[in-house]
Amino acid sequence: MVDYDRFFSQDVHSFFRSPVREIFKRVDLNSIYSFAGGYPSASTFPLEDIKKTTAEVIDKYGAKAFQYGATQGVPELRNAVADRYSVPVERVQITSSSQQGIDVCTRVLVNPGDVVLTSNPTYLGALQSFKSYRAKIVGVPHSSDIEEFRQEYVTALEQCKGSGDKVKFLYMIPDFQNPSGETLTLEERKVLVGLAEEYNFLIVEDSPYRELRYEGEDVPTMYSLAPDRVLLLGSFSKIFAPGFRLGWILAAPELLDKIYVCKQSLDLCPPIMDQYVAAEFLTSGRLDRNLKKSIALYKGKRDLLLSLLAKYMPEGVTWTRPEGGLFLFLTMPEGFDAVKFYDVALDNEVAYVAGTFFRTDGKGLNTMRMNFSFLDESRMEEGVRILADIVKQHI
Amino acid sequence: MVDYDRFFSQDVHSFFRSPVREIFKRVDLNSIYSFAGGYPSASTFPLEDIKKTTAEVIDKYGAKAFQYGATQGVPELRNAVADRYSVPVERVQITSSSQQGIDVCTRVLVNPGDVVLTSNPTYLGALQSFKSYRAKIVGVPHSSDIEEFRQEYVTALEQCKGSGDKVKFLYMIPDFQNPSGETLTLEERKVLVGLAEEYNFLIVEDSPYRELRYEGEDVPTMYSLAPDRVLLLGSFSKIFAPGFRLGWILAAPELLDKIYVCKQSLDLCPPIMDQYVAAEFLTSGRLDRNLKKSIALYKGKRDLLLSLLAKYMPEGVTWTRPEGGLFLFLTMPEGFDAVKFYDVALDNEVAYVAGTFFRTDGKGLNTMRMNFSFLDESRMEEGVRILADIVKQHI
Repeated sequence: MVDYDRFFSQDVHSFFRSPVREIFKRVDLNSIYSFAGGYPSASTFPLEDIKKTTAEVIDKYGAKAFQYGATQGVPELRNAVADRYSVPVERVQITSSSQQGIDVCTRVLVNPGDVVLTSNPTYLGALQSFKSYRAKIVGVPHSSDIEEFRQEYVTALEQCKGSGDKVKFLYMIPDFQNPSGETLTLEERKVLVGLAEEYNFLIVEDSPYRELRYEGEDVPTMYSLAPDRVLLLGSFSKIFAPGFRLGWILAAPELLDKIYVCKQSLDLCPPIMDQYVAAEFLTSGRLDRNLKKSIALYKGKRDLLLSLLAKYMPEGVTWTRPEGGLFLFLTMPEGFDAVKFYDVALDNEVAYVAGTFFRTDGKGLNTMRMNFSFLDESRMEEGVRILADIVKQHI
Repeated sequence: MVDYDRFFSQDVHSFFRSPVREIFKRVDLNSIYSFAGGYPSASTFPLEDIKKTTAEVIDKYGAKAFQYGATQGVPELRNAVADRYSVPVERVQITSSSQQGIDVCTRVLVNPGDVVLTSNPTYLGALQSFKSYRAKIVGVPHSSDIEEFRQEYVTALEQCKGSGDKVKFLYMIPDFQNPSGETLTLEERKVLVGLAEEYNFLIVEDSPYRELRYEGEDVPTMYSLAPDRVLLLGSFSKIFAPGFRLGWILAAPELLDKIYVCKQSLDLCPPIMDQYVAAEFLTSGRLDRNLKKSIALYKGKRDLLLSLLAKYMPEGVTWTRPEGGLFLFLTMPEGFDAVKFYDVALDNEVAYVAGTFFRTDGKGLNTMRMNFSFLDESRMEEGVRILADIVKQHI
């Protein structure tokens, strides 16, 4: 027998498994009432259009669609992304998933012990990546008062300064956050960008949900406020389909240059045919036509879930009211343990993700994230009813 | 202006650009006589079959082909790989390219300063990855005498031991090596596996070319000799098409478990539809039928290049005679500088890769790698004639 432990790198000891992905191993999400994953609705994938577009791409590009390609991404897709978001193409790097975007930014910016500042709670996959590079993660609580909001970040920054820790970047999902569903105001974004200048750190703006807005007005991206300070991560997963594993980074050329060299040794280049298919979807308007339908569907689902929670949840349970995205966040009365409770829920064929998994401090045991994009509308009432019934029995 | 330098991680200072990929930026490989990249011939991509299979996959799997999937790879592809190579499916991890396989193995196994042992020369993309994690790369020269062969490795291992360096793994391409084209004998493989036991290190066996054999008999993989010591990296790039960016790792479940958790934060999962297409190609026999044609084509190209070198190259130039793969390796008389000479060649529309780029010690200035898979047979004679003419003028 080989003793493998002696071979593992130090980073390995900081890896942790996604509790969300562990859930997916235990159950078939299609056969239960799942509010768990961040999965788009299967009904939003434009299957016939993809089939048609794939055939067109093979006819149009031929062997080029299957050969090695540029590490930055194929020019057609880089240009389409640059056009859509009105940025120079030199500021566009295509990634093999926006998770790779998080990972490669961390790799290029973070030494063990460096601080990554995050909202608290925040996206689990980002926490996985930061921890895997042994970053010191400092989660900052959210205050809805703008002065207190600023003060929370100043306090965290001053503490880092005091202990000699180097803050490399702030990780933020300003639009329809995962897991809270909340959106930062323009004022809040300006505060954060201002602090980035003042304390000299970068901002990684993770923006996978931004185009899924169901009400209200777009708020400018942090990237648009400070394009040299902010790296924006985009994703095709929620506006097109996750199976393609394609995303992008918008950033200053000086930063992209290092990311580009890193990506050479990570995977050489993103999948080629998939990039051409995504480019065709963007430029032909097919993506936008499909996205419009997804938004209508998800708006209906969000409204339905909000009304069902109001109808079934006992007093003392509160939740966020997201203007877009895929999630809302529930807070149960103090004392409720959403981690322990999880097995009971699963026995009753309901799944969610415990809110504490998204936190940097182990708190928030009485919170849970509910996804409303995946579960079929016809099954949502039954799911909420079951969940609410068990909640009632446990508070 | 933001001073970005202060933000970069220590790893970044060890990144280096692939000189091969830099060449691809300078010229359109299709318009010159390119012996440079490790590109398969575009004519080997089964375009019509891929188009048909993609449509079939979309009909068969529907939305599942575009949803998130398992981090280990879709079961259909894992099973197909397990069947093809007669390994238990628990020992199969699908990767988003075999370059990712190299990267993730290094990430999971290597701390800065740890030793990675390699043949010298070896694959450039592997050197990029090892250096990016600040590994100490120790290149070992190849001797064709089995006792000397063993002794070279023992010397290197003893030196590491003496200086307190921890050897984590040996990186090897035993079949039709990149860049040399050479294949390790069974005896040599047994020596290396024996040393791995004796000195307690692992072996990463990079095996992208193994199925492209044009003569002689298969030699057992090192993985088959010691499945608990060896991680085998496979690739669809040379037996199917590089554009899919799909590969696999065969290894002990204890190792794959860490690689699996690492891959969660790297990119969640490989592209889904592409995996189903690859699985269909494997199980339907389409891949093998196509591979048979590729082998016939490449055998012809290898034979042609060997005969052209014999016809045109001046005395004093020698080259390897590969039994398979995509490359052969030329040695010019001492004093010839293949790096300096490269611009002259490019001015005359011929491209190759200088052999020194594949070395860990900067030596081998008088060597070059020639690829024979990419350039069309009809253009090969002219390419070799031009190259040989300039060589004659410079030795």
